Amino acid sequence: MTADDSAEVRFPAEAESNTVTLADLPLREDLRGRSPYGAPQLDVPVRLNTNENPYPPPQELVDDVTAAVREVAAGLHRYPDRDAIALRQALADYLSVSTGVLLSERNLWAANGSNEVLQQILQAFGGPGRTALGFEPSYSMHPIIAAGTRTDWAPTPRREDFTLDTARAAEIVSERKPDVVFVTSPNNPTGGSIPLAELETVLRAAPGIVVVDEAYAEFSSQPSAVGLLDSFPAKLIVSRTMSKAFAFAGGRLGYLAAAPAVVDALQLVRLPYHLSLLTQAAARAALRHADATLASVAKLVAERERVVEALQGLGFQTVPSDANFVLFGRFADAKASWQSYVDNGVLIRDVGIDGHLRVTIGTPEENDAFLAASKEVPR
Amino acid sequence: MTADDSAEVRFPAEAESNTVTLADLPLREDLRGRSPYGAPQLDVPVRLNTNENPYPPPQELVDDVTAAVREVAAGLHRYPDRDAIALRQALADYLSVSTGVLLSERNLWAANGSNEVLQQILQAFGGPGRTALGFEPSYSMHPIIAAGTRTDWAPTPRREDFTLDTARAAEIVSERKPDVVFVTSPNNPTGGSIPLAELETVLRAAPGIVVVDEAYAEFSSQPSAVGLLDSFPAKLIVSRTMSKAFAFAGGRLGYLAAAPAVVDALQLVRLPYHLSLLTQAAARAALRHADATLASVAKLVAERERVVEALQGLGFQTVPSDANFVLFGRFADAKASWQSYVDNGVLIRDVGIDGHLRVTIGTPEENDAFLAASKEVPR
Repeated sequence: MTADDSAEVRFPAEAESNTVTLADLPLREDLRGRSPYGAPQLDVPVRLNTNENPYPPPQELVDDVTAAVREVAAGLHRYPDRDAIALRQALADYLSVSTGVLLSERNLWAANGSNEVLQQILQAFGGPGRTALGFEPSYSMHPIIAAGTRTDWAPTPRREDFTLDTARAAEIVSERKPDVVFVTSPNNPTGGSIPLAELETVLRAAPGIVVVDEAYAEFSSQPSAVGLLDSFPAKLIVSRTMSKAFAFAGGRLGYLAAAPAVVDALQLVRLPYHLSLLTQAAARAALRHADATLASVAKLVAERERVVEALQGLGFQTVPSDANFVLFGRFADAKASWQSYVDNGVLIRDVGIDGHLRVTIGTPEENDAFLAASKEVPR
Repeated sequence: MTADDSAEVRFPAEAESNTVTLADLPLREDLRGRSPYGAPQLDVPVRLNTNENPYPPPQELVDDVTAAVREVAAGLHRYPDRDAIALRQALADYLSVSTGVLLSERNLWAANGSNEVLQQILQAFGGPGRTALGFEPSYSMHPIIAAGTRTDWAPTPRREDFTLDTARAAEIVSERKPDVVFVTSPNNPTGGSIPLAELETVLRAAPGIVVVDEAYAEFSSQPSAVGLLDSFPAKLIVSRTMSKAFAFAGGRLGYLAAAPAVVDALQLVRLPYHLSLLTQAAARAALRHADATLASVAKLVAERERVVEALQGLGFQTVPSDANFVLFGRFADAKASWQSYVDNGVLIRDVGIDGHLRVTIGTPEENDAFLAASKEVPR
């Protein structure tokens, strides 16, 4: 472990293990030829590609996270609270106050990002021989997590304008009887959210679980679906994340609200001690500063409106957004236009929708840089 | 979010969602009737039940983890490095020096505990229609993670004395052709480890992946299986954890060493950004203090020998251990004896092996308390 020890390092034919390729491994057939999911992580001055909150955490939050970590670090040799009770209580408090629906820690569950929450949901309620249905285009991890849990994926198109025809959606759900339905509100990458009355139409039609993915709920003009939990306790799961409005993408904390029985079900599939001592302590500290962090939401919504108007002034079409991003176009060649933005120092996202790109709302300065690049971009 | 806001909280018929039970949910049939995995987390003075390192992290490590977290916390609003390159390099450096086998960050992969590493391995190489084989009794999460990934589980018994008959194991592996074989060395909960030559016998016989689970490697008298990576690059995966010798159970950091192509395969199934900014920073800080932390290993091995002798002196049978725990017996009623230990303030583990209990090696004082309770315990 010391510098002197390094003299002991032998140099085996490391090249041997390096010559093995994926083709030499007994990989599952359905994974062959796939690429790992993920937006390019490029070093570009203005990063508006992953819907993060552009405002760094306030100093008081940094101090509090640091103090919380110092306190728990002395106990790092011990496993964390497996049930993360204190964190789930803090999340319940936040959600109760912000939605007006009283929730207890028994209604809350948390994991390392909402992706892990969604994976656990499909491990419990999806899996081989079961089907999950989503309205596309939507969050691209839904079908990927379905594949990862061997759940059949039933993609169902939205309207041409990317809104969800909930009456038609309810018909399709009644017909196909998927075990799990994903409804994303506000929808990523298109931006629109769904009124509760329309969500109810889908919930009534669903024979199984309905996951309302509210990753961007804090930016939305619509109320949270947690208000429907009591009407659909055996069906509805509302998933959330601290990665967006909460400015905690680096902390990886996703959560959900549901009936306590749903939490019991997820306990059967979660890996024990999945949430570290540090994650639990840091997320609790971040939740103590929710007011300060979420003060950025109004600024970002105002900036979104400014960016939308400016884009329209430049002759772009914009898709109405209730989130912290805007899908816009049209481009003759979205890929080439994306590259033009990168060349101008602005990283946005090519989400694979023909003729469109998605831009995250950043700080006013970042949005100005994006708008300046938009004047140059090939259409 | 303020105290005044709480007046706005409505009280819906929360009871409604609380009346739903697991039986009302569309849970997968194979999960019905199961209980969540996990040792009881009881508040007992002496906790010797989960094989943690009993020595708290040294102050210099606490300080360094805290400083590292303070530094990265200002960037918590951004997603972490998805590939965790710096952490994987630090793990490669540690493993290279401690095993004498030169590894690069391309050989390393990390996740939130070795459970997540193992889950990713089975998502890539196991799953529906595939089989994983293990030599039981062994780490009880192996079959649970197999179930969670819908991999068929083929349990194969060890000898009566809990050692592994590797010649016989190789025969069974040749016959049954499992897609994945788990070999735990040192084996949990029995304690024995396997010489490299015997591991090679199993590796030669295996048609697919062999996972050598080395969670307790730092305590072992046998060399690490990483020395075999170059001979079996398309088969061998060595999994490790920072939860045991490294005194980092609360930090949740598991890792593996394998051919770079194996890492490529896991990238296809990992959830993006699965390792938080905090986990990456804290684990790197902990690795910088490996010398200080691992200084406890020799003390724990010496204490293990003392505890074994004392148990034998009290007339117990002990299973030879190369780890930081000892399986011992025999008890007429292991469950009743376990309870007697708890009543005496000592929490050990009933691992479900008839007539046996497992005790983690603690500090000398904790071990004394355990030995005192052992004089009282019903046999």
